[in-house]
Amino acid sequence: MLSRLRGWDDTIVALATPPGSSAIGVIRMSGALSFAIIDRLFPSKRISELASHTAAVGFLKENNTPLDEVVVTVFRSPRSYTGEDMIEISCHGSPYVLEEVIRALIRQGARPAKPGEFTQRAFLNGKLDLAQAESVADIIASNTEASLKTAIQNMRGGFSQTLKVLREKILEFSSLIELELDFSQEDVEFADREKFVVLLNDAVMVTSSLLESFRLGNVIKNGVKVSIVGKPNAGKSTLLNALLNENRAIVSDIPGTTRDTIEEVINIGGVLFRLIDTAGLREQPTNHIEILGIQRSRIKIQEADVVILLFDVMDEHIEESRTNLGQNTQSKQILTVINKIDLVGEKIAKQRFSNSKDVIFISAKQKQNIENLRSKLLESVIQDGAKSPDVIITNMRHFDILQKVLDSLNLIKTGISNKVPVDLVASDIRECLHYLGEITGEISTEDQLDYIFSKFCIGK
Amino acid sequence: MLSRLRGWDDTIVALATPPGSSAIGVIRMSGALSFAIIDRLFPSKRISELASHTAAVGFLKENNTPLDEVVVTVFRSPRSYTGEDMIEISCHGSPYVLEEVIRALIRQGARPAKPGEFTQRAFLNGKLDLAQAESVADIIASNTEASLKTAIQNMRGGFSQTLKVLREKILEFSSLIELELDFSQEDVEFADREKFVVLLNDAVMVTSSLLESFRLGNVIKNGVKVSIVGKPNAGKSTLLNALLNENRAIVSDIPGTTRDTIEEVINIGGVLFRLIDTAGLREQPTNHIEILGIQRSRIKIQEADVVILLFDVMDEHIEESRTNLGQNTQSKQILTVINKIDLVGEKIAKQRFSNSKDVIFISAKQKQNIENLRSKLLESVIQDGAKSPDVIITNMRHFDILQKVLDSLNLIKTGISNKVPVDLVASDIRECLHYLGEITGEISTEDQLDYIFSKFCIGK
Repeated sequence: MLSRLRGWDDTIVALATPPGSSAIGVIRMSGALSFAIIDRLFPSKRISELASHTAAVGFLKENNTPLDEVVVTVFRSPRSYTGEDMIEISCHGSPYVLEEVIRALIRQGARPAKPGEFTQRAFLNGKLDLAQAESVADIIASNTEASLKTAIQNMRGGFSQTLKVLREKILEFSSLIELELDFSQEDVEFADREKFVVLLNDAVMVTSSLLESFRLGNVIKNGVKVSIVGKPNAGKSTLLNALLNENRAIVSDIPGTTRDTIEEVINIGGVLFRLIDTAGLREQPTNHIEILGIQRSRIKIQEADVVILLFDVMDEHIEESRTNLGQNTQSKQILTVINKIDLVGEKIAKQRFSNSKDVIFISAKQKQNIENLRSKLLESVIQDGAKSPDVIITNMRHFDILQKVLDSLNLIKTGISNKVPVDLVASDIRECLHYLGEITGEISTEDQLDYIFSKFCIGK
Repeated sequence: MLSRLRGWDDTIVALATPPGSSAIGVIRMSGALSFAIIDRLFPSKRISELASHTAAVGFLKENNTPLDEVVVTVFRSPRSYTGEDMIEISCHGSPYVLEEVIRALIRQGARPAKPGEFTQRAFLNGKLDLAQAESVADIIASNTEASLKTAIQNMRGGFSQTLKVLREKILEFSSLIELELDFSQEDVEFADREKFVVLLNDAVMVTSSLLESFRLGNVIKNGVKVSIVGKPNAGKSTLLNALLNENRAIVSDIPGTTRDTIEEVINIGGVLFRLIDTAGLREQPTNHIEILGIQRSRIKIQEADVVILLFDVMDEHIEESRTNLGQNTQSKQILTVINKIDLVGEKIAKQRFSNSKDVIFISAKQKQNIENLRSKLLESVIQDGAKSPDVIITNMRHFDILQKVLDSLNLIKTGISNKVPVDLVASDIRECLHYLGEITGEISTEDQLDYIFSKFCIGK
């Protein structure tokens, strides 16, 4: 399949750094012609004769016109990112210069790379499996310690390894069962059904725990949506400010890096919490003050992963409101928070709500117990930090396929316990193996690959 | 002076690529501690033991937590950009990852670099003279073939070389004249006055021609401001579109690179022409139609380097208008263009204006002779392409100092021809040498350097 991919033999080139003016910009080129092309443009040294992982400084020239003074770094196949002959050209960071250099490389025989094409080649050349390749994009998109850690772990193969071991064990049984098909007239059993059921139970457990890790994985990758719901004057804005105050996410010294995410996002223990519907949170009190604006609050609750129900300690209707809102919240995490305890003192506040379980007492204004609220927010998504799974999936594609793996595992189990004909079981096993292979890329089609890598940035 | 600069012994670090998500981002570190710092964060290989210009792949780790998988390239003093020990770290292009890596390097002893500090160190370590260092910023800012070519030529020392040769020759005479001061009682002349005057005349010529090249240099670096002036309905918008039509500047395949400059800018022969006051060009005809709206037109003419006076071939008052506008245009280049020749035919049009010199006949609508107008635009700034000077100055600082050099050269000449006392001549020569040294940085103060390099980007 590999050799039949479109444009697979081409030498590809792309800008690997963001567009814009800066000190330097890096252009990447990968493919069989990389060295021949650079030799024609770099007269002062024969790059093709340099050792791998060495750099040369000199002028890029086309028709004796200098394009730029650059550093060319050589990576020889198979010791490169893509596994092919590869060079990186570090130019002055002028968009014009970078474009001219890319144009010159294209004139000499390279073609512009498609998004993710370098990583796609790394996958096709066996440098990374598919799940590892996908985690490269996650590293680039990572914006917290937790998301980076998970992405790096997956790039190093933590997640793939678990599935590969599983797949190999099932494959073993599969070959024995396929063998039985050849002898189907003779009613022999090469595959030990009891041991196979043990393996299947293991596999169901592993798959289920991976599927469960997706909730955490998704939280780590995309952050947790938090709604603060409460009556006007319960202190929503004050609480928001108290939470944001000393704990803003990723405050950057590098201008422009995190501009998009900095507003209303807080980082607690390496996890991003996104305070959604904050326009609403800051609204002026309306004229229609219902008990708790049930209708609007329900919408906010629907959008959120975690809901903070915020009450004024002086509110007479807290229990009533809690019960009202408690309906239809399904699996949402709800934190009930009693604010303004500075008005009556923590002790009296706690006495007043001695019948209410799981209530957090704070004073947003005096920044009392805010740290405690932060811990509860973190616990609401990572129930037990110590026991958080070693391997976490963060990718929707993996989640979808693992669902299918789980379904087929259960089908196989049912088939065996119901003693269905061996050819049906064999077919279910094949399906299960197929799905497992789809995750790590042992089984993939060109369209699938194109789709997966099209979401990468150009130059990666 | 060098060793007394603030922070000169520090090891500095900065992001060298633009902020933003991309395939890779590059961090630069320079200074004595570079290798010690990277050794502490790169456990898989001792970077400090690698040869210069080699690269190593591995994980950056702090307290055993992986930060990223990176490529570290080693440049050993003096064979680096700054002349110091230097490393470049190519990370995954995540703003979060890049920031975390920079933070880790800072925790290990580096400090954030100031704008241009890498290039400032290159200058202070004698890798580049000051004029060369300044041209590095010009390369980054270059946006046409001509501006890139001039910047590269100046980075390679074309301009500095001319001045250094001049300075050395004057220095030679200077030392002889200083010697005369020691023997001032004896009225001897060590320095041959005739030869010195020849040199001074040479120097005046070189300096004047450099000063003259600034107009072209400025045009190359910043583009040429062109105003199209004409009565309503003379065809200004149509001409603008005809000029823009197939000749838009730097149309980029790289998204976002040239967004700011693409509007109303055309590239002719590698020079940018900026069509200014285009809002005015597209205005609706006003109710007060004066002969040519002299008042407004004069303002437009003031703002422009080149003015296109555009007339309808059927206009009865062309000569009158030309004469009116010809006043006070000083050294502006004026191109008189007769439009709509398709209405009467080129032959009849030319007959009608047979008395007018230097008139260009076009039909903007039919795109007739537009190419000819383009050539005339280019000629208006580069009078004779073949004879354009070898060395071009583009920097306002250099222009200002060269004016002072020219003034002091003339003072010396006058002094010699008027036989003023030798100590006065010697003082003028010292001043002249001082100014020449200021350009290439042989003479510079910390404040001057800080000012010059503060205009660079961080990481350069």
